Amino acid sequence: MKIGLIQMPVTSEKEKNLSYAAESICECTGQGAKLVILPEMFMCPYTNEAFPVYAEQAGEETWKMLSDAAKNNSVFLVGGSMPERDGNRIFNTSFVFDPAGNEIARHRKIHLFDIDVKGGQCFKESDVFSAGNSITVFDALGTKIGLCLCFDMRFPELSRIMALNDVQIIIAPAAFNMTTGPAHWELLFRQRAVDNQLYTIGVAPARDENGPYISYGNSIVASPWGDIVYRADEKPATAVIDIDLEMNKSIRSQLPLLSARRTDLYRVEKI
Amino acid sequence: MKIGLIQMPVTSEKEKNLSYAAESICECTGQGAKLVILPEMFMCPYTNEAFPVYAEQAGEETWKMLSDAAKNNSVFLVGGSMPERDGNRIFNTSFVFDPAGNEIARHRKIHLFDIDVKGGQCFKESDVFSAGNSITVFDALGTKIGLCLCFDMRFPELSRIMALNDVQIIIAPAAFNMTTGPAHWELLFRQRAVDNQLYTIGVAPARDENGPYISYGNSIVASPWGDIVYRADEKPATAVIDIDLEMNKSIRSQLPLLSARRTDLYRVEKI
Repeated sequence: MKIGLIQMPVTSEKEKNLSYAAESICECTGQGAKLVILPEMFMCPYTNEAFPVYAEQAGEETWKMLSDAAKNNSVFLVGGSMPERDGNRIFNTSFVFDPAGNEIARHRKIHLFDIDVKGGQCFKESDVFSAGNSITVFDALGTKIGLCLCFDMRFPELSRIMALNDVQIIIAPAAFNMTTGPAHWELLFRQRAVDNQLYTIGVAPARDENGPYISYGNSIVASPWGDIVYRADEKPATAVIDIDLEMNKSIRSQLPLLSARRTDLYRVEKI
Repeated sequence: MKIGLIQMPVTSEKEKNLSYAAESICECTGQGAKLVILPEMFMCPYTNEAFPVYAEQAGEETWKMLSDAAKNNSVFLVGGSMPERDGNRIFNTSFVFDPAGNEIARHRKIHLFDIDVKGGQCFKESDVFSAGNSITVFDALGTKIGLCLCFDMRFPELSRIMALNDVQIIIAPAAFNMTTGPAHWELLFRQRAVDNQLYTIGVAPARDENGPYISYGNSIVASPWGDIVYRADEKPATAVIDIDLEMNKSIRSQLPLLSARRTDLYRVEKI
């Protein structure tokens, strides 16, 4: 399965971001991608001040650009994320489209990113965003795919529930920072992949040292054995990566983790 | 809290292994250790053929050596593991003693290690061992400590349940091999520590290239931020490591993961 990862620069000019995204989606499909992924907050700066200003409703400009790009390129599209306005509330939302341009999933970030590291990052997403209330799984290309946004990946329950529901790939548009990125990014995507014996994919904005929020970049694909199939550096990068889902089955038969769970002693489940 | 890790060579001579363990425990307490940890199967070769031959009941020679060593050195002791005979069954068991020599916990490995990696390791513990049926947590030095054996660490549910029950350190006597060790050992201990914001400690037998089972070694202590506090290489090594449990609180306040869990959307629990 060929998957496009767009680690794009995000500027304060929405139109510029949308054009860059549209062109990159086209570039990926030109290279054979059947599913393309944009980064978290691909259309606006990652600041609490910007979110309400850039927020749009489903069906408006950004949503329409994404739908059109999916349709025009006949490709599944995970539209990174954007501030989604719904009544008085704003969500950090990822819209997913099929090759006909239909919205087939909508993930509203369920764990908001509130952090205050001494001498490092301080950020409170919950000052602006409301949290989503659903675990998101969609079907594409005959495969079940789980969708997280960034901080959602931190919670092992979520990945586990997805794996137990036959998810084969977990995708996370994300924007780790220069504190958490070097410390935890690779570790996290690799270990979720190893624990659940599936592929994990993180797609981040490119780093802008002068921006208001400095993204770690390093978009990544980890295999069910925990190998790094692909990893970008911090610069803008558009890549099409061919992953072999047979590896999930192979690893699961050689090192039977999911079937060796002691379901008589513990349980993890969606409520 | 000063903790001793004994990455010892394990031979086919039980008496030699017991003496080595006893001397190393004494060495650790001499360096101020208040809790000492032996590796998985510290008294017998790691083979299905050896387990029934070396197996003993609780209260017999090895158990008594451990109890005496704890008492004589006035130290908490996690006695690695040994094949424990109980009626017709054999368990892979870790006995834990307090400084008075009393057994205060007994963990029987609950996930048996069955693996068949193409071109790599093939091993079926379940051919010989019965599986335990309890999650093991004990109190030592005013701290709750969770106890896993090797393959148990593979299952994120277990670490999570321990963390939710106020465990501050997860200890795993373990013996990863030359297939899984390089691929997963460090990753696993670091990510369980990061996810649950506690310390993880793995203690392995030293590597014997000529032995029937080649242990990866690399005994490890990972901090709640995922830093490697200590890591041995493959050779015999006795170390006393001072860990700061205040770091658990500090990390949890800076990056609130446990409290940010969406307990309205999912649950993980002991049955």
